[in-house]
Amino acid sequence: MKNADLVLGIDIGGTTTTFGFVEADGNCLAETEIPTMAREPLSRFMDRLAQQVRQAFFPFAANRSLIGIGIGAPNADHRTGMLNNPPNLKWGTSVDLAGLFQRVFALPVALDNDANAAALGEMEYGAARGMEHFIVITLGTGVGSGIVVNGKILHGTDGFAGEIGHTVVDPEGRICGCGNRGCLEAYASAGGLCRTFFSLSAKQGGESILHSVPFSALSAKMVCEAALQGDCIAGSAFEETGRILGMKLADAAVLLSPEAIFLQGGLSAAGELIFEPARRSLERHLPGMFRGRVKLLPSGLGERNAGVLGAGALIRRRLETGKPP
Amino acid sequence: MKNADLVLGIDIGGTTTTFGFVEADGNCLAETEIPTMAREPLSRFMDRLAQQVRQAFFPFAANRSLIGIGIGAPNADHRTGMLNNPPNLKWGTSVDLAGLFQRVFALPVALDNDANAAALGEMEYGAARGMEHFIVITLGTGVGSGIVVNGKILHGTDGFAGEIGHTVVDPEGRICGCGNRGCLEAYASAGGLCRTFFSLSAKQGGESILHSVPFSALSAKMVCEAALQGDCIAGSAFEETGRILGMKLADAAVLLSPEAIFLQGGLSAAGELIFEPARRSLERHLPGMFRGRVKLLPSGLGERNAGVLGAGALIRRRLETGKPP
Repeated sequence: MKNADLVLGIDIGGTTTTFGFVEADGNCLAETEIPTMAREPLSRFMDRLAQQVRQAFFPFAANRSLIGIGIGAPNADHRTGMLNNPPNLKWGTSVDLAGLFQRVFALPVALDNDANAAALGEMEYGAARGMEHFIVITLGTGVGSGIVVNGKILHGTDGFAGEIGHTVVDPEGRICGCGNRGCLEAYASAGGLCRTFFSLSAKQGGESILHSVPFSALSAKMVCEAALQGDCIAGSAFEETGRILGMKLADAAVLLSPEAIFLQGGLSAAGELIFEPARRSLERHLPGMFRGRVKLLPSGLGERNAGVLGAGALIRRRLETGKPP
Repeated sequence: MKNADLVLGIDIGGTTTTFGFVEADGNCLAETEIPTMAREPLSRFMDRLAQQVRQAFFPFAANRSLIGIGIGAPNADHRTGMLNNPPNLKWGTSVDLAGLFQRVFALPVALDNDANAAALGEMEYGAARGMEHFIVITLGTGVGSGIVVNGKILHGTDGFAGEIGHTVVDPEGRICGCGNRGCLEAYASAGGLCRTFFSLSAKQGGESILHSVPFSALSAKMVCEAALQGDCIAGSAFEETGRILGMKLADAAVLLSPEAIFLQGGLSAAGELIFEPARRSLERHLPGMFRGRVKLLPSGLGERNAGVLGAGALIRRRLETGKPP
């Protein structure tokens, strides 16, 4: 593969889709964000995305070539290229996303779960380089995980391993987008943090600078800013979110014995607001022989988009080896 | 390796230790049980075990040779041969068990976690033959799991992966032998079932044929027999144990996407009393795309001891390949 070759990495999220042209060394060119607008039909999304991709590629058209497309998306099946009824995307129960991209762009396509792509990005270009056993948790509209065992992405028998967002926090708890009750995603996603803010407001009383914001308008970013300004209920919402997240990370850690767990995605940008209570809760729920041995770390990619880089790595590995990572 | 060669497989449990001489095809000769007496010093245990092993081997001494020893034990580290502070064995915080067996028997020794050995037994000789992804749950004095990913035992970075017994059912729940609160082991072990029987007795009132049995004398077997005779509280204790177990199996299943989960060990002998509520709870807590796809099965080894066969397979593989399975 020539060094000048680019791959298109696409990270499809429930709210935002990000793409970029990834060089072999992980440098990402023309990174672009578009709203996913997940309630629109898939065809409208594809039209908008394809237009943006073509415009963004144009400056490189003279001396670079685009050799493939990697996609990370929720509930993606790496074997079939299908999306299987992702709760946060209303595109139908089973969509041949890889086939659609192949037809639209006439390029080889590799697709995997968004959290698996994020884990691959961390492994290729981030802080997990050289690690054999680690977990990447993506905290965004949903909560996902990419699990690496013996240096390989764990897909399991059906290809859907790593759905930590649908492990059970409380069997009588909040209704989740998947239809079950009490899933981690209903607590530790961006929306989960907002639900916790309102739940604590109802329970504790007291004042908050966010009490003038309607339920439908509150965002995780607003809760984060309020907490940083010392808002007590917003701070408690992070504390509670971290407690619940840490407890479920402890479960995953005793099953998998990872060297490290990385938090990526929107909520992880809140830094110690989420890391500190999550780390405390993780340690408290680990049995003795695991304590102090499971690192909870931010992504080593900093501001760079792990999902886009990982999606790029996905198609590069496929083109190089003919096999999934 | 000659077909006549035997390996000694030993399964050390918190209550009972079982050993046998395993042929290459998985046939087990002279299987013997001794009480572990885990509160006695380790030296007494070794004296009793060595005496029994020598006596049991004598009939084969003329025309078979013993070529190695495989051991499955709680909290065993397959890399170092050490036992690390197992909560159900009071032999010290860190014991070089492999070294001790080597000195006593002057034979090569391989050691792994008891649940990993049990998983290896199921993979070599039981119902998991040919499966790439499965989990074996051992329900006895403790609750353990052996996880197989891509056809290999998952050890993780520290060697202690698979500690499902110490995943959290309820952070405010029962005190566990590990010192934490609310671990699965405090609910789904033999002792956990008995605790649930007394807890339900206290909560529900009503009569039970077991209400004449003191707390310290109740065994899981007694609860099982009572439930089979139609005792209502004993039946509810199994229902509740299955509910909790199924919920935590669902967590493991969404992380690992196994083809099957096998229940082995004492409690699994209760059959549908435990399988039926566990299966129902597992299905209820799985997200849609996993439903109906994760089999919950009894061991394919029937009355044969998975731990002993797995321990035998452990040392055979080590002798053949020089590597752990």
